[in-house]
Amino acid sequence: MQYKNFPMVSKVVFGRGSFDQLGDILEPKRINVNAPFIFLVDDVFEENAWLNTRIPLAYQDQIIFISASEEPKTSQVDALVEQIILEFKERPSGIIGIGGGTVLDLAKAVAIMLTNPGEAKDYQGWDLVNNPAIYHVGVPTISGTGAEVSRTTVLTGPDKKLGINSDYTPFDQVLLDPELTKDVPKDQWFYTGMDCYIHCIESLTGSYLNAFSQSYGEKSLELCKEIFLEDTLSEAESQDKLMMASWHGGMSIAYSQVGVAHAMSYGLAYVLGVKHGIGNCIVFDYLEEFYPEGVKLFKAMKAKHNIELPQGLCKNLSESEFETMMDVALGLAPLWENALGKEWESIMTREKLRSLYEKM
Amino acid sequence: MQYKNFPMVSKVVFGRGSFDQLGDILEPKRINVNAPFIFLVDDVFEENAWLNTRIPLAYQDQIIFISASEEPKTSQVDALVEQIILEFKERPSGIIGIGGGTVLDLAKAVAIMLTNPGEAKDYQGWDLVNNPAIYHVGVPTISGTGAEVSRTTVLTGPDKKLGINSDYTPFDQVLLDPELTKDVPKDQWFYTGMDCYIHCIESLTGSYLNAFSQSYGEKSLELCKEIFLEDTLSEAESQDKLMMASWHGGMSIAYSQVGVAHAMSYGLAYVLGVKHGIGNCIVFDYLEEFYPEGVKLFKAMKAKHNIELPQGLCKNLSESEFETMMDVALGLAPLWENALGKEWESIMTREKLRSLYEKM
Repeated sequence: MQYKNFPMVSKVVFGRGSFDQLGDILEPKRINVNAPFIFLVDDVFEENAWLNTRIPLAYQDQIIFISASEEPKTSQVDALVEQIILEFKERPSGIIGIGGGTVLDLAKAVAIMLTNPGEAKDYQGWDLVNNPAIYHVGVPTISGTGAEVSRTTVLTGPDKKLGINSDYTPFDQVLLDPELTKDVPKDQWFYTGMDCYIHCIESLTGSYLNAFSQSYGEKSLELCKEIFLEDTLSEAESQDKLMMASWHGGMSIAYSQVGVAHAMSYGLAYVLGVKHGIGNCIVFDYLEEFYPEGVKLFKAMKAKHNIELPQGLCKNLSESEFETMMDVALGLAPLWENALGKEWESIMTREKLRSLYEKM
Repeated sequence: MQYKNFPMVSKVVFGRGSFDQLGDILEPKRINVNAPFIFLVDDVFEENAWLNTRIPLAYQDQIIFISASEEPKTSQVDALVEQIILEFKERPSGIIGIGGGTVLDLAKAVAIMLTNPGEAKDYQGWDLVNNPAIYHVGVPTISGTGAEVSRTTVLTGPDKKLGINSDYTPFDQVLLDPELTKDVPKDQWFYTGMDCYIHCIESLTGSYLNAFSQSYGEKSLELCKEIFLEDTLSEAESQDKLMMASWHGGMSIAYSQVGVAHAMSYGLAYVLGVKHGIGNCIVFDYLEEFYPEGVKLFKAMKAKHNIELPQGLCKNLSESEFETMMDVALGLAPLWENALGKEWESIMTREKLRSLYEKM
């Protein structure tokens, strides 16, 4: 058996208010005055002076605001890379992503594509990247995706939704400042937190698990339960702990895999553009037969926080849209195998999958 | 407030039997045929063909067997560095430590001293290292110290027992193969496992704690309880989980600190040469007033595994030995402050400390 050699984030700082240290962290990494730092920032912060006035700009450093209303695309990566190459005489000193999973994944992908030829879609898959990325930093402003610690950057391309999975993908530096999550709207907080909860359930019940991933997944799950089911935490404690739940949840994927909810959610995202967090929730709500305990707790969390999920998404889908959705979902063999074992194709037939989608 | 920017191990592989991947991992890191890999290996494996025939040697690569019967010394680091420099024309491609905390700490220190001038004792302290270490790999063969993941390398020097704490200290690669711990003698298994348990208790009850360190410390402590107090695990599961407990316990120190037991154990080690693991146990057994819950559980674990700790170590100490021991222990201000708060000096007076040592 061959075990994965997992690349970790090189450096991490954790603490409320640690965002003010970003300038000190970047300073020694500046190559020269013509090599800027490019800050990719979620556009929810465009009018937020509390955050954006604290972004440390010098020389030709630039902020590019990014809409996270859609899942990140390979074409978006290519456009950003082109914009940066055309505007600056030198390769940037670094790319800093400040936002949720979408912005963090874009930052990782842009850092890779600045040193690798071709288009982002050419690198969707496993270990296709040959050159190290430029220095890249992740600053999450919402907790749950695990994008801050993962070795992938999930992108929707012309043919597929698939990550650039490589040793050069993880951030060189992550800054975890839970205070940055204080203004996240409640529904978004729930959906993204549930992304973490759901991938813990999928990973802990999956067949790929080992003691490394189990220990991270269990801790993450325990934190999720404390945050979403109990009333013992202050707001600040809850923010701190959800940021750690996301971190550990991301680490738990090193030797495990997600499962049914993620596979089906990828299908929804591809055809309907449903965002990852809410998509996972919509799907997971109907997966009692695969994750009985996990779905029971999920429903309790949903009720406790008065979350209403959209219904009837697949009601008006055409035949060809259904087919595409199923092709995308069923294409993710490792997820199904992790969830249902080697014989997964006899369990998750196209009819079965279709009947599940039709409920949603 | 300024938060630490913590450097993590760059890559980690986990799995039973993963030791066989070491050759594949090292291969791309070989600089040339004259730049050897130097394997520092615990001498308990000198006659152990199961392990030592699997060490991947090529060209001028060399194994140096190391006795771990004493705590690692700065003079030992300097001697190893001199030996390597005199024997090889080129700087090594890498240093690989295969053993417990002693060997892992020596490997980290040798990797640092091969690129930094002067003697190892010059670097005992915080952030005194200016040049990156050469590539270094840690392969623990006993679990509990956390040395595989820490940013320090604890050394006994002519003046003090203190680590080389730096961003260049952590391993570039760690290989976690729980099977390598299968022949650890029971008492050693207990003492080293308790090193992990004790630093979790010290870190979780300390004043320096934050959510980052808490989440790692809690998971590590939970695993320790499962391993040392319950009877639900197979031998292999227990080995797997103790290796993860050690890993998470080491990570929990990023934003926390150890406490009374470690401070006092450093004193014992300095004057009497007591090894770290057993020293922590000897001390912790008498610390009910500081860690009531933790010591109660420790005594239960000790009883469950029929561990007899040495008694009367300090019975025949001279006055000057007592004074030195107390100087060493009380010199570790951050540990005392973490355990007892800013007013620690009024709690842990020399008289109080002496009375504790006299029991041991």
